[in-house]
Amino acid sequence: MRDKKILGIDPGFGIIGYGLVDVQNKAESFVDCGVIRTDPKKPLSERLLEIYEEIRGLIDSLKPDEVAIEELYFFRNVTTAIFVGEARGVIILAFEQKKIPIYEYTPMEVKMAVTGYGKATKRQVQEMVRIMLKMKNIPRPDDAADALAIALCHAHQIRL
Amino acid sequence: MRDKKILGIDPGFGIIGYGLVDVQNKAESFVDCGVIRTDPKKPLSERLLEIYEEIRGLIDSLKPDEVAIEELYFFRNVTTAIFVGEARGVIILAFEQKKIPIYEYTPMEVKMAVTGYGKATKRQVQEMVRIMLKMKNIPRPDDAADALAIALCHAHQIRL
Repeated sequence: MRDKKILGIDPGFGIIGYGLVDVQNKAESFVDCGVIRTDPKKPLSERLLEIYEEIRGLIDSLKPDEVAIEELYFFRNVTTAIFVGEARGVIILAFEQKKIPIYEYTPMEVKMAVTGYGKATKRQVQEMVRIMLKMKNIPRPDDAADALAIALCHAHQIRL
Repeated sequence: MRDKKILGIDPGFGIIGYGLVDVQNKAESFVDCGVIRTDPKKPLSERLLEIYEEIRGLIDSLKPDEVAIEELYFFRNVTTAIFVGEARGVIILAFEQKKIPIYEYTPMEVKMAVTGYGKATKRQVQEMVRIMLKMKNIPRPDDAADALAIALCHAHQIRL
């Protein structure tokens, strides 16, 4: 198998994590991670445009082969669900326009893939990300670490 | 007041209504209406790209000055809310990219504006749309008529 760059995306309200891993036959390695933040004081439509443009920028700079994005099911309220849905929409659009294959995983699938246990804590998942990617510290903020976990989950699927 | 073209959008799951009205000092007039449908058998990411491209096409052909879109609060389930949210995201993005001002109205605001009664039935709203726009028949399908009602709601706000 040729090596592949997998971009993980953790879509959220106001902050979106991303993490890029390189996958080869035998191992995954860390490439990059970070977050996209939008200003809560701006209108939602401007924030959606910012998210879209930031994702387009990430695609150009990181050149991922595939993207893995977290499926979200639970929300405090429907308004949050709608906005996170809107953000997911523009994120998915950006990848679809560039014909980058998109894969979706539930939080439980991510936990299972990374720790072998579907009810692992956030901290356990992050510690496994650190170990698997041979990092000195757990990446910060949480959203970036979560995005790496999502990328690792897809890497796991590819290697199976 | 110079005349303005208002595009109403009724975002939904699989079908999106649109309706364009021309607003002048004294009256609104019908310009166009219709629906965007996407194929339920296609992957959601492809359907989002289709919706985005159809909306871009509508902007180019109809040249709206402002857009009014329905805010949605109630869903049968969260999965539906997420997909409708995703569709709304790419719709809003298309207008924001073209710097067309976006206004949002709840279903109750639309009913109030068009019939004077926040709990009017769908049929009553559609009949008022027909009368206000001097149309022979209620526009079909429902989603197109609903989109015209949303456009009329915003026209009402502008004229106040």
